[in-house]
Amino acid sequence: MNHVRVDLEKTVDHSYDIVIGNDLFASLAEGLSKLNLSKIAIVTDSTVKKLYGKDLFELFKKQGLNSVLVTIPAGEKSKNRTVKARIEDMLISEGFRRDSLILALGGGVVGDIAGFVASTYMRGIPYVYVPTTLLAMVDSSIGGKNGINTASGKNMIGTFYQPKRVFIDLAVLKTLPEKEFRNGITEMIKHGIISDEKFFIFMEDYLEKLLSGDEDALSKAIEWSSTIKRDVVEQDEQEESIRKILNFGHTIGHALEKVSDYALAHGEAVALGMVAEAKIAKAMSILNARDYQKIIDLIEKLGVSPAIPYSARKVLEHTSYDKKSSKGVVQYALPTSIGHMEIDVEAGDDVVLQVLSEMQ
Amino acid sequence: MNHVRVDLEKTVDHSYDIVIGNDLFASLAEGLSKLNLSKIAIVTDSTVKKLYGKDLFELFKKQGLNSVLVTIPAGEKSKNRTVKARIEDMLISEGFRRDSLILALGGGVVGDIAGFVASTYMRGIPYVYVPTTLLAMVDSSIGGKNGINTASGKNMIGTFYQPKRVFIDLAVLKTLPEKEFRNGITEMIKHGIISDEKFFIFMEDYLEKLLSGDEDALSKAIEWSSTIKRDVVEQDEQEESIRKILNFGHTIGHALEKVSDYALAHGEAVALGMVAEAKIAKAMSILNARDYQKIIDLIEKLGVSPAIPYSARKVLEHTSYDKKSSKGVVQYALPTSIGHMEIDVEAGDDVVLQVLSEMQ
Repeated sequence: MNHVRVDLEKTVDHSYDIVIGNDLFASLAEGLSKLNLSKIAIVTDSTVKKLYGKDLFELFKKQGLNSVLVTIPAGEKSKNRTVKARIEDMLISEGFRRDSLILALGGGVVGDIAGFVASTYMRGIPYVYVPTTLLAMVDSSIGGKNGINTASGKNMIGTFYQPKRVFIDLAVLKTLPEKEFRNGITEMIKHGIISDEKFFIFMEDYLEKLLSGDEDALSKAIEWSSTIKRDVVEQDEQEESIRKILNFGHTIGHALEKVSDYALAHGEAVALGMVAEAKIAKAMSILNARDYQKIIDLIEKLGVSPAIPYSARKVLEHTSYDKKSSKGVVQYALPTSIGHMEIDVEAGDDVVLQVLSEMQ
Repeated sequence: MNHVRVDLEKTVDHSYDIVIGNDLFASLAEGLSKLNLSKIAIVTDSTVKKLYGKDLFELFKKQGLNSVLVTIPAGEKSKNRTVKARIEDMLISEGFRRDSLILALGGGVVGDIAGFVASTYMRGIPYVYVPTTLLAMVDSSIGGKNGINTASGKNMIGTFYQPKRVFIDLAVLKTLPEKEFRNGITEMIKHGIISDEKFFIFMEDYLEKLLSGDEDALSKAIEWSSTIKRDVVEQDEQEESIRKILNFGHTIGHALEKVSDYALAHGEAVALGMVAEAKIAKAMSILNARDYQKIIDLIEKLGVSPAIPYSARKVLEHTSYDKKSSKGVVQYALPTSIGHMEIDVEAGDDVVLQVLSEMQ
């Protein structure tokens, strides 16, 4: 036997900047015009197109940027293979190449599908993300996870692929529905729970201001929350260890989204998921009673009623498709106290069922 | 404006070993049984399944490996989105997770689609490649390129994703049809042309032995040829610069495959592509007359008649979908002499048309 060693150890740099500000579209257009791109695809959804997509497209045209506007139906159900193929075929027919760019303008759904397209189109072309929901600003814009859903589960197919830059434009929050604010705040609360008690206290103190759209509070919370997620992702880009703490609330949360056939929004499902997983942590004596109560109280204050309108057994079944599992055993990331987590916890089916049943 | 910097500069190691030997299946099964994998999918095609797939599957079963056999139709046309989705859905329903493994057993088509599936299944699971054609042994098994075709062109959608290990088992060549030997030898000749005159001379000297399946000659040629490609890929995994030299013969070659609707095998198309691109290089006074003649002679000796049975204009049109283009201008990698290349050459349409017309 002979061996040929293919040595592919090397330094790679997937670093990027998240720019946080107000009314960033003009500077975005100006920045892109310096990049010598052959083409730009603004990928957006039917809702955001009307609010901002057309304006951005016109602005790009004025700036002399060769752009197309690609619109997908709004909602989680667009995260599928057919929509991905449709975008790809359009890019091909419009002559997009490796020196072209994809700009995702929208919430997490748009970011997930546009990022996945970018990562596999001609084996990877650059993309830039302009999140338009609070949830996307503090969650999916950081870390490069993308994906589509299949009939069996959420984000089953996807890649890790970092954007070249993220533009968080606070101006777009002015048109965000109140329900969407709650979805975003849910993930921010999660960031406090998983690694920063001070931020959790900030969220307790500023919850009402955030819900009412107070710009200073939002700006501070977005930056703080982004920094927390950034710190986690920097340590473990590919989710081999510590990045798993970000999945708090998501094992049950994803199962709920799936069982509801995506009638539950991601934020709502994660809020319920955090309640359920906090209960699991308490039942397993992993989480202390005082911090458990603080978590439950804050989520309730957010306006989430902790009731699960789906069969406990069905939800449990769907957790088994979770990617954070090993040898078929679902692994949870659970808080030990606010700001501290334990990963790879194998919660028994009985505990999970018990908690889900209580929440009916 | 505030900036949050996401710092993702790091050292990654995608290194792997190519094992070259005879009758490797037993040691392959033994090696895999030490890895504590939850499941293995042997992805193969309808032809290879009968020859080796079933045997390997039985061997894995005996070894106590939890495996499934996934068979796709043989041929380039399987490199499509539907086949990819079918494999993924099967993996999901069989409970494949991140601690599972994909083993590609087959030629380049199987490797390309199985590698692509592995790279996006739950955002990436490990895979191992057992190439069963000479072409796949010396070409697609090194470098991690994968992909599927769309209606518009070859490998339009895919990723760079390295296998964990490659097993080149010379024993499987015993059942390889003669035409397939020529396809593999074509890529080996290319490796000589693009970077190693000594290997080109070896190929001249040993051509008949290789065509007749002489094991010593094959073993030496495979190792040498793999090392050449390895040296290129190590310098430029993502095809940003020097890796482009590997595309010699492929810009025209891919267009020919597409225009023929994949009636032309990859090796045949690349042989014709090398003749055409050598002619372009000579017409542009990039390649000297002596080396041009040596290239033409060796390809002819291989049994390729340098005649293109497709409209020159149609072939030219299809080169425009090539990924190695910038701002819509197709860029060629052309030899300056045997062993030396020039990349990013913009050959005018007139020169390309002239050459393709001559070859009618």
